[in-house]
Amino acid sequence: MTRGLSVVADGKSTDTDTTAASVPASHADLLERPVFAHLATVRPNGAPMSSVMWFAWDGTRLRMTHTKTRQKFANLAEDPRLALSIADPDDEYRSLEVRGVLESVEDDDADASFYKGLQHRYGRDYEVTDKDVRVVMTVRPTKFIATEDGGITATSKV
Amino acid sequence: MTRGLSVVADGKSTDTDTTAASVPASHADLLERPVFAHLATVRPNGAPMSSVMWFAWDGTRLRMTHTKTRQKFANLAEDPRLALSIADPDDEYRSLEVRGVLESVEDDDADASFYKGLQHRYGRDYEVTDKDVRVVMTVRPTKFIATEDGGITATSKV
Repeated sequence: MTRGLSVVADGKSTDTDTTAASVPASHADLLERPVFAHLATVRPNGAPMSSVMWFAWDGTRLRMTHTKTRQKFANLAEDPRLALSIADPDDEYRSLEVRGVLESVEDDDADASFYKGLQHRYGRDYEVTDKDVRVVMTVRPTKFIATEDGGITATSKV
Repeated sequence: MTRGLSVVADGKSTDTDTTAASVPASHADLLERPVFAHLATVRPNGAPMSSVMWFAWDGTRLRMTHTKTRQKFANLAEDPRLALSIADPDDEYRSLEVRGVLESVEDDDADASFYKGLQHRYGRDYEVTDKDVRVVMTVRPTKFIATEDGGITATSKV
């Protein structure tokens, strides 16, 4: 089942737009490598939360796995805007912020193939015990901000 | 000058409360060590942003350096609620989320002593060229969430 835009709250998204921002070339490796992302979402009461996530990158969209049962998912159903920050583990003074919007949410397949693929990308293969509530969240980047040594070195805005 | 509560927007904070949450002992090292924190704040339009920050920890409060001129500072003046997530660089499946509120903002001193101390903690000593706009942001933690291998292992709520 594709819920897609049904998760997007009225007036809080430009999700009818499908144009994605382009990542600055200097920092594209941070999306291509299996680096950890810190995902910021906004809770229904307006306060932020932040947590560490795996992600996949296909050149235009980020995808993450999640379950339908947890707070981050509820937050994004209420307000699909999010930000991810990703620091280079080899040089944490080099980082990339991705601002974006949750574009769609789909159930993972019966084998949790997306989740299994993410496990493989991050070098941790194990059994998926919650396949029935696993979803694939697709994020459309709206802006990238590349940072080195505390200063912004490149941005991208569509 | 202590601006303190003047940065706290009406009705968005319980900042008259001075009770801080206690960090779960299993994850206290992530505050004691010079690990990088990913700071989530909420922009005036309600969207989150996330960026990599240094911090200091005195056992009850986190402190960060910032300048008065940047977006994160403007966000927190509008809404003092924030979240930090901190992953163990030696095992990124072990992380700590700190939810809290910006309790006070004070100018750093003429020598930028707080900032210089942070530089030293993180092993990067260099000249401070923006001492006149450097501030010390003090964060009162309201909740800690400790995570290992994708699951919550401990929380703290006052």
